[in-house]
Amino acid sequence: MKAGNKTTGARLRIVLETDVAIGPGKADILAGIRETGSIAAAGRRMGMSYKRAWSLVEEMNAFFTEPMVETSRGGNARGGATLTPMGEKVLDSYRHMEDLTDQAIAGEMKSLKRSLADMAKRK
Amino acid sequence: MKAGNKTTGARLRIVLETDVAIGPGKADILAGIRETGSIAAAGRRMGMSYKRAWSLVEEMNAFFTEPMVETSRGGNARGGATLTPMGEKVLDSYRHMEDLTDQAIAGEMKSLKRSLADMAKRK
Repeated sequence: MKAGNKTTGARLRIVLETDVAIGPGKADILAGIRETGSIAAAGRRMGMSYKRAWSLVEEMNAFFTEPMVETSRGGNARGGATLTPMGEKVLDSYRHMEDLTDQAIAGEMKSLKRSLADMAKRK
Repeated sequence: MKAGNKTTGARLRIVLETDVAIGPGKADILAGIRETGSIAAAGRRMGMSYKRAWSLVEEMNAFFTEPMVETSRGGNARGGATLTPMGEKVLDSYRHMEDLTDQAIAGEMKSLKRSLADMAKRK
C-alpha cells in the first residue's frame, strides 16, 4: 500500500471524467484485494468498514468497459475477490502515474523542502 | 482557481513532511488571496467559512521559514491580506508541479480514458 500511508511525496487523484476519479484510497483497495483476495480484508487493513470498501468497489466496477474486481460468489464478496485484467491494468497505470509524478516534481519538492520551518516552530 | 474545480486531470497533494501538505484547497486559498486581497473573499468564493479559511492560512504560515500570507491589521485579516514572497513562491511552485504532473501522466490518462464506460452505464 504505497500511496495511502507514505508520509512525504505526492498524492495523486486522477479525475478521468465527472465522478470518475481514482486516488490513493481506491488504489489501496485494489492493491489490498490483489494481495489478500478479499474485499473485507482489503478494507480492514485500511480501517474501512466492509460496507464502505464494497461500495468503493461497486463504484469502480462501473467506471470502465469491464469491471475491475470479480467476486467468487456473485454479489457478496465475503467469499473472495480478485482483480480482473482491467483492475490490474488500472492499478498498474495508477502506480505508474505516481512514479511519473514523483520523478517530474522531484526538483520542485527539493526546493520547497529547503524552506521548511523547524518542526519546533509548528509545535 | 485551477485545481479545485477542474473536472478532469490530476489533482495533486504534496506532502513535504508529516502534517505539512499543500493540495488544491490550500493552493486555491492562496490564489484567492492574491486575486482578491482578502482572506474572507478568498474563502467565500470557495464556499468556505471565514474561520476555516483563516485557520488554513494560520496553518500554512507556520510551514516555512517565512509566512505565506501577511495581513494588514495584525491578527485579524478582514482588513486585507496579501501573499508574501514566500507565498508567491510556494503557489507558483505548486502550479508548476501541477503542470509537470499533467505533462508526465498525459499518455497514461489518454490510455485509461479509452477504457471508460459509457456515461449511461454509470447512471
